[in-house]
Amino acid sequence: MKHAVTYKLLKTDERSKARRGRVHTPHGDIETPVFMPVGTAATVKAMRPEQVKELGAQIILSNTYHLYLRPGHEIVKEAGGLHKFMNWDRAILTDSGGFQVFSLGDLRKIKEEGVEFRSHIDGSKHFFTPEKSMEVQNALGSDIMMAFDECAPYPADRAYVKNSLERTTRWLARCKEAHKNVEQQSLFGIMQGGMYKDLRYESAMQIVEMDLPGYSIGGLSVGEPKELMYEVLDYCVDYLPKEKPRYLMGVGSPDCLFEGVERGVDMFDCVLPTRIARNGTAMTSMGRVVIKNAAYERDFSPLDPNCDCYTCRNYSKAYLRHLFKSNEILSAMLLTNHNLHFLVHTMENIRNSIEEGRFLEYKKEFFDAYGKF
Amino acid sequence: MKHAVTYKLLKTDERSKARRGRVHTPHGDIETPVFMPVGTAATVKAMRPEQVKELGAQIILSNTYHLYLRPGHEIVKEAGGLHKFMNWDRAILTDSGGFQVFSLGDLRKIKEEGVEFRSHIDGSKHFFTPEKSMEVQNALGSDIMMAFDECAPYPADRAYVKNSLERTTRWLARCKEAHKNVEQQSLFGIMQGGMYKDLRYESAMQIVEMDLPGYSIGGLSVGEPKELMYEVLDYCVDYLPKEKPRYLMGVGSPDCLFEGVERGVDMFDCVLPTRIARNGTAMTSMGRVVIKNAAYERDFSPLDPNCDCYTCRNYSKAYLRHLFKSNEILSAMLLTNHNLHFLVHTMENIRNSIEEGRFLEYKKEFFDAYGKF
Repeated sequence: MKHAVTYKLLKTDERSKARRGRVHTPHGDIETPVFMPVGTAATVKAMRPEQVKELGAQIILSNTYHLYLRPGHEIVKEAGGLHKFMNWDRAILTDSGGFQVFSLGDLRKIKEEGVEFRSHIDGSKHFFTPEKSMEVQNALGSDIMMAFDECAPYPADRAYVKNSLERTTRWLARCKEAHKNVEQQSLFGIMQGGMYKDLRYESAMQIVEMDLPGYSIGGLSVGEPKELMYEVLDYCVDYLPKEKPRYLMGVGSPDCLFEGVERGVDMFDCVLPTRIARNGTAMTSMGRVVIKNAAYERDFSPLDPNCDCYTCRNYSKAYLRHLFKSNEILSAMLLTNHNLHFLVHTMENIRNSIEEGRFLEYKKEFFDAYGKF
Repeated sequence: MKHAVTYKLLKTDERSKARRGRVHTPHGDIETPVFMPVGTAATVKAMRPEQVKELGAQIILSNTYHLYLRPGHEIVKEAGGLHKFMNWDRAILTDSGGFQVFSLGDLRKIKEEGVEFRSHIDGSKHFFTPEKSMEVQNALGSDIMMAFDECAPYPADRAYVKNSLERTTRWLARCKEAHKNVEQQSLFGIMQGGMYKDLRYESAMQIVEMDLPGYSIGGLSVGEPKELMYEVLDYCVDYLPKEKPRYLMGVGSPDCLFEGVERGVDMFDCVLPTRIARNGTAMTSMGRVVIKNAAYERDFSPLDPNCDCYTCRNYSKAYLRHLFKSNEILSAMLLTNHNLHFLVHTMENIRNSIEEGRFLEYKKEFFDAYGKF
């Protein structure tokens, strides 16, 4: 079957599972490994879309649950799709809404058919199913659509996780069946199985059989220790086909990016860089900078002397501190720009290091400079 | 005496007092009449400075009171001055701090020497004098500095207003004496006199005698009806010298700009366009648009079909409504950009209409389309 989204493996590192690849989408090619900025409500918070492009982002993630509730997927469809609605002409990946719906806790009820939930905005009642998730994502017109899955919490007992992964597989088959726009959009499957090796294997075998254009590793970064996440990644990436892209959902701290790439992951997304930016924290080549600290009151140097982003070229820490303390919107704008630039460029450096056969050396250099996470 | 800031009168309208002129400053020439966006805390809220330039702003206003309190004028001076601190290389006008200090109400006490007040941020005690205002503005390095005046409230009795305008004159003499950087910065005087014609005349005669490079009309737009403001403008502009620029402080609604220009005013500033933008209101060629209105839910046309600003070129009302309702920062960014563009371009159209001898015709066209204010 011909997919709208395809993957080409360009090179695999000799001393790790790190890989250089390229994902082709109807809205342009994506060099991998890649970090995808998050634009939850059809906007990467505090950024104009061309600024997101300028800093080198190749693809962004947007959220099905949020757009379904507000403004409503029919409105986005009438606007000409999400790309046109939000003025972003590069690739878009949408999640399935599953993770947000499950995060609602008491506000939702899981059945075999789907999930009943109440809106966090106005308390209205909704019912999400694999078919509904596909309908919404087809209306949004994202390049990569995610399957509607159940993400088991951590910790969760074996019976729960097994039950949940098997339902996820059944839902994936329904998603594949319901997906109406295979010419323009591609559906990625999601592996579940919690922290259980045999269940990860079971999940992988079931979803890989469906020959989807890409696979995500779900159910990680849900509260477990990082070491446990790395341990699970160590084996479960091997269960996925080499010729398809692998996406680790919701992971974006610099250390996790390196550890994920080392274990063969191609795609990452996370709200971390944009969220901590709004809280006044910058990621720099020398570690985190908490801009409100008194130490920066008269510090007229840039956030990161090794950064050539718009923020670092034009503004001092003293100015950024002033903006943050004054609750100025420009503070969020400038720190978001810097943090996204930092992660996107770190990922570019990672790609170069894989091409040049020095990924592990680059990882060590980066960690030595960045310090404690 | 040679001033850093000079004015050239290019043309006066034959059927009104509207004038085309040019203000020369150490940071570039300003075509007048001009609208000056406000950047209270060393940032035009929700805008990168080059975006403010791109939409055609020639000069911005920043606030002495706010910068004195936070981050502190010594820090701005150490940073290399306000232009460098905030990354704005065009002209800057700073107010004197007087208006903000007087607005503190119970938190301040007026004496002949100056005004004692408590910070609105932390309640700390401060004393502002004409000398202090000059010291702060010299540290900021603005191109145009405003005199430290007392702006009488409306309504105010004659004795209060007379006393206040005479103190303003004495304070102006102290400002002129205290101003330490005449080579690079120019001090403008401020006319007071409330709504009393003879007191306006008295104030004008006293300040014009000091041969300053520009004069402001203070004490208007302080709560009086617009008709009364126009009536006062009708006579008091004539008391100011033709060869100096005239600045009407704190005025920026489209109707007031036209009425002010018609009465011979050259410079205006106001927080209105940026403030209402953050509250979801746009100024357009067809009147105000309150973006949250349900009417725009599926309106995929731009805010203003006659506008070529970044916002109108790229986004629909439906998208802007979605952003506003979702409390997204991009909403403030896009609406601020549009509103500033609208006022700056309306002023450009006003300048062209004066040059072409059709100012009154343009005013009528604008009002007919804009509707009720």
